[in-house]
Amino acid sequence: MNIEKLLGETVLNSWKSVNQRVSALLAQLSDEQIHEEIAPGKNRALYIVGHLTAVSDRMFPLLGVGERRFPNLDPVYLEHPDRTEADPLAPADLKAAWEDVTTRLTDALEAFTPEEWLQKHTAVSDQDFAKDPGRNRMAVVLSRTNHISYHMGQLMLMQNSR
Amino acid sequence: MNIEKLLGETVLNSWKSVNQRVSALLAQLSDEQIHEEIAPGKNRALYIVGHLTAVSDRMFPLLGVGERRFPNLDPVYLEHPDRTEADPLAPADLKAAWEDVTTRLTDALEAFTPEEWLQKHTAVSDQDFAKDPGRNRMAVVLSRTNHISYHMGQLMLMQNSR
Repeated sequence: MNIEKLLGETVLNSWKSVNQRVSALLAQLSDEQIHEEIAPGKNRALYIVGHLTAVSDRMFPLLGVGERRFPNLDPVYLEHPDRTEADPLAPADLKAAWEDVTTRLTDALEAFTPEEWLQKHTAVSDQDFAKDPGRNRMAVVLSRTNHISYHMGQLMLMQNSR
Repeated sequence: MNIEKLLGETVLNSWKSVNQRVSALLAQLSDEQIHEEIAPGKNRALYIVGHLTAVSDRMFPLLGVGERRFPNLDPVYLEHPDRTEADPLAPADLKAAWEDVTTRLTDALEAFTPEEWLQKHTAVSDQDFAKDPGRNRMAVVLSRTNHISYHMGQLMLMQNSR
């Protein structure tokens, strides 16, 4: 495998492993547990899962790899704080939405060539991208991978003492 | 800039931005706040900062880029749970240790060529690395970047409602 391809592969592995951790946690969380707050007065696990699913769903147009499927999550889990809007999906359906989004996104990323990883994302203009080629698809994937890890650290507070 | 170099640069930017978020938060945390728990019964912020500093300090030998400076953090922040050992450093000294480690690590990563990013880390044998070239320095840096994000999500619970 050449250097460029291996660099892309290494980033993809990081994305996959973080997404798999979320999926593994969701598989363990009962419908009752997912409604609990991660800590007193903080977001419910359900809200965080809805938030992560919405953010990942928005990556399809952002990376130019397809259409979103769950735009109805945005008002509840991106635009309003927890417990101000009704949850649009039952826990089982939200978990299925997460799996659907993460699986299809990962399939799309698997197909990227090194050149495709470095193409601009759709939220940056041609002009701005010419000035800063760092605003590419890989930067989006790395940023979202960190965002998932950030909330995973919060979800894990429900499970153990740390 | 060629493709390989830009891929490495994009990963480095992600590392830098996550580390800068921690540094910015530490600059805001008073000595009193850093002793608070991130949520009732959970780790103190000080413990998490000690933990992150120890983990980053261990990256020097792991990546083969120098000697560690703060091995005395390990027993307290890696090997024992919070509040079982005395904190070895005052908050100001721990913050300075974090800055020292993150600055020197970032300098070392800045100097990596694409080939150097893909060299094996020191915790994998030549034999295992031959089987799986994904066990390289970039994989370590991505894993540690996610680890910092994970704990950053916990530290931020002190600051806001989410």
